[in-house]
Amino acid sequence: MSTLILLRHGESQWNAKNLFTGWVDVDVNEKGAAEAKRGGELLAESGLLPDVVHTSVLRRAINTAQIALGACDRHWIETKRSWRLNERHYGALQGKDKAATLAEFGEEQFMIWRRSYDTPPPPIDAGSEFDNFSDPRYAGVPSEIRPRTECLKDVLERALPYWYDQIVPDLRASKVTLIAAHGNSLRAIVKHLDQMSDDAVVGLNIPTGIPLHYDLDEDMKPTGPAAYLDPEAAAASIEAVKNQGKK
Amino acid sequence: MSTLILLRHGESQWNAKNLFTGWVDVDVNEKGAAEAKRGGELLAESGLLPDVVHTSVLRRAINTAQIALGACDRHWIETKRSWRLNERHYGALQGKDKAATLAEFGEEQFMIWRRSYDTPPPPIDAGSEFDNFSDPRYAGVPSEIRPRTECLKDVLERALPYWYDQIVPDLRASKVTLIAAHGNSLRAIVKHLDQMSDDAVVGLNIPTGIPLHYDLDEDMKPTGPAAYLDPEAAAASIEAVKNQGKK
Repeated sequence: MSTLILLRHGESQWNAKNLFTGWVDVDVNEKGAAEAKRGGELLAESGLLPDVVHTSVLRRAINTAQIALGACDRHWIETKRSWRLNERHYGALQGKDKAATLAEFGEEQFMIWRRSYDTPPPPIDAGSEFDNFSDPRYAGVPSEIRPRTECLKDVLERALPYWYDQIVPDLRASKVTLIAAHGNSLRAIVKHLDQMSDDAVVGLNIPTGIPLHYDLDEDMKPTGPAAYLDPEAAAASIEAVKNQGKK
Repeated sequence: MSTLILLRHGESQWNAKNLFTGWVDVDVNEKGAAEAKRGGELLAESGLLPDVVHTSVLRRAINTAQIALGACDRHWIETKRSWRLNERHYGALQGKDKAATLAEFGEEQFMIWRRSYDTPPPPIDAGSEFDNFSDPRYAGVPSEIRPRTECLKDVLERALPYWYDQIVPDLRASKVTLIAAHGNSLRAIVKHLDQMSDDAVVGLNIPTGIPLHYDLDEDMKPTGPAAYLDPEAAAASIEAVKNQGKK
């Protein structure tokens, strides 16, 4: 049996400002850092100590991982990073205020961009302030697979090769494996693991900073439902997001 | 030509308290974190942007690297860690107050332990509060090579295999390579690169937080003297350490 732990980064500077972030490399804020620390404490309390960590190449996931691992005394473990674990690329919406975008385009269009499984926002303009196409961290990624916008389906398609080629071998080697990443890259992985339908995943929210624990069989299938290490906090967070949507 | 950068971690909680640290896993303090940030800014200013970082498995080097890389926007690079880059194991002196040790054993013995090239302090007692022999991060290191005390010669001997097998391949692949480590593991590497005699290395001090830049030829020999990215601050720091010794 293999142990997998998913950890969504804590609140970032732009979450707090209500801006679409995507591939823009914003750090966690103080609240986010505290969430990461609490995540690490939950790992320590539950005895789920990672042997290897996989992160995106974005600062808010990298620092969340480092803070959480520091809190459970596993800061020294093997570390791997990939753009394939990045947040969804939000295309032309990157850097835009969410409320202003809602007002400009209307709720229907807004919800399609935010939540549709297979409709991406318009691509980002080359040379836009929030375009990362030429960022050196992506220099090794051939331009034909470097996204200019993504829907969740796109995220799953680019995350899966990394799952199969880099993460599964660690799980097979019986390493307790931590993935520290983002709302949408983790939703994509959960969709894959839990074999969720395209419709069902639309309603899936993963709380920030609360480790989500999977036990996987030798075929890399979950042996049961995944469990948040702080189920009450997770339920409260999921409920809060639902109510946000109702406003 | 290959580019190598050495970075000694900033002030730690125990440096400030004047305790022998060695393999005890103490973090940098606020001053040390600020030194690390300044180190990263120096990298950015000089355009020496690392492609890969090698650290010890100790928190003060890991966090120094992460802070410095964050400051030059290279937090996303490939990361490798090894106990072979750890600080010198200080044996029975770990956790002891330096002034009290000096008073107890006298200056001659004290200076031999601190500065002799090939005389280690007494080994640490198994089960001592500051013994890390059973720490999970060393579980993969066979006990016959897991040190209980070290002199600088021992540090060089255990660091060299990592230099040849892990760092040199990165340098040969033309990756700008950062080593974030400790006073003595870096002195060992400098002794090797600059072909310093056993006597000469006794007088070598490497300032904290100031990147030291080597250009290496294809035989991994320096093409000239290494240069600190802030030569004035480095000279002042080296002078201050010399004067400390005179007190």
